[in-house]
Amino acid sequence: MVSRVLLTGAGGRVGQAILDGIGDDYDWRLLDRDPPTENPDHEFVIADITDPDEMREAMQGVDAVVHLAGDPRPEAPWDSVLRNNIDGTKVVLDAAVDADVDKFAFASSNHAVAHYETERKPDLYRTHDEFKLDGTELPRPGNLYGVSKAAGETLGRYYHDEHDLSFVSVRIGNLTKGHPPIDYERGQAMWLSHRDCAHLFDCCLEAEYDYEIVYGISDNDRKYYSLERAKEVLGYSPRDNSAHFDGDERVE
Amino acid sequence: MVSRVLLTGAGGRVGQAILDGIGDDYDWRLLDRDPPTENPDHEFVIADITDPDEMREAMQGVDAVVHLAGDPRPEAPWDSVLRNNIDGTKVVLDAAVDADVDKFAFASSNHAVAHYETERKPDLYRTHDEFKLDGTELPRPGNLYGVSKAAGETLGRYYHDEHDLSFVSVRIGNLTKGHPPIDYERGQAMWLSHRDCAHLFDCCLEAEYDYEIVYGISDNDRKYYSLERAKEVLGYSPRDNSAHFDGDERVE
Repeated sequence: MVSRVLLTGAGGRVGQAILDGIGDDYDWRLLDRDPPTENPDHEFVIADITDPDEMREAMQGVDAVVHLAGDPRPEAPWDSVLRNNIDGTKVVLDAAVDADVDKFAFASSNHAVAHYETERKPDLYRTHDEFKLDGTELPRPGNLYGVSKAAGETLGRYYHDEHDLSFVSVRIGNLTKGHPPIDYERGQAMWLSHRDCAHLFDCCLEAEYDYEIVYGISDNDRKYYSLERAKEVLGYSPRDNSAHFDGDERVE
Repeated sequence: MVSRVLLTGAGGRVGQAILDGIGDDYDWRLLDRDPPTENPDHEFVIADITDPDEMREAMQGVDAVVHLAGDPRPEAPWDSVLRNNIDGTKVVLDAAVDADVDKFAFASSNHAVAHYETERKPDLYRTHDEFKLDGTELPRPGNLYGVSKAAGETLGRYYHDEHDLSFVSVRIGNLTKGHPPIDYERGQAMWLSHRDCAHLFDCCLEAEYDYEIVYGISDNDRKYYSLERAKEVLGYSPRDNSAHFDGDERVE
């Protein structure tokens, strides 16, 4: 049973969506490089994920990790993603294995596979198009940030195979609060609502799995990412769908 | 037509096998961090692949790159493969794109997929076993060196998709001179003879391709790597087979 969870990058958008939804369900240890902007509801550690000593200390007594920290910018320069996203993920994985952590949920990204869209857009974003990515495909990153996320997935595979750590890579789509992106077909195709986001990471903490790559999106009519593995292995049961909105209004 | 070829890591074992076989067929620019041990037959540049300025200069007038440089040790520590293999490959790719290079052959490794063997050995190494990896599978590295090679493959995919660079990743098996490894079934399954190695990289310089991942082994009876893509796309026609040896003696 997962009780104590370390959440890295707790101050970011994904972290906030998770805490809004399942903040009361676990004994959270929040971690961020920057101090919290308001008084946190949970234990808060200010640390840099690229620092092995700080991460070893932050990992004490932890059952599971939700690893969101890293440079989140799609246009981030190589030096930053090399250090923060690739090397940083390695540091967090080492600390997790040293502390006998059971489960590790990694925030990967749609950018790890964005170049599959190049020859297929915009049809791909529309409901008549049947093409779907399912997580078994090789990465085709759309930027160096996406390269770094793919490298994190491979590191996770290695740590799973070597240390039997349960590892799930969540290729997060377009997370927005309240309603899907407006006038942006790609964003509607890969929309992830806040409550579906929190529920999906809850599944990552509760389910039993070995190594998984899943897509983190709501059940959008326009989707070109399969939700099969997330549903089957993790028990993900999304409640939202960008087709149920007209602009910022829920219509269904 | 490829004429001038930059060979990084020219002083290593793979580089020597290539030069022994096709040294007379191209206008080589050899590059290594260390000076040559004997008088080289070709232009020789002493440079570090992690230095962008040195690489930009080394790339002038080059049609194709065979990128072998990096820390070759399966047990190499993370800091070294992060810098030399991951970051170094990025530096070489940047220089190649800046110089309008057409083709880029990357020395990947069997270590990028070694954990596929874990639950299948030793049957996998024997002729009755039908299981084969074909290059479409996700990486399952057996060590951090393998993680770094998988990251290099993903970088290549990104540079191909962004810059239309023809990129081939050669997952090199067990290269030995003269005869296959003795009393080592895995090595016999993934043996790569010197002449097949030179021929395969010759194919990488002559064939037309987009992005490929191929296995670099001889046509061994024991193989669990498919040669289909290498044969179909690159025209690879291996002449050796570890089954044709009894110890260090060719028997067929």
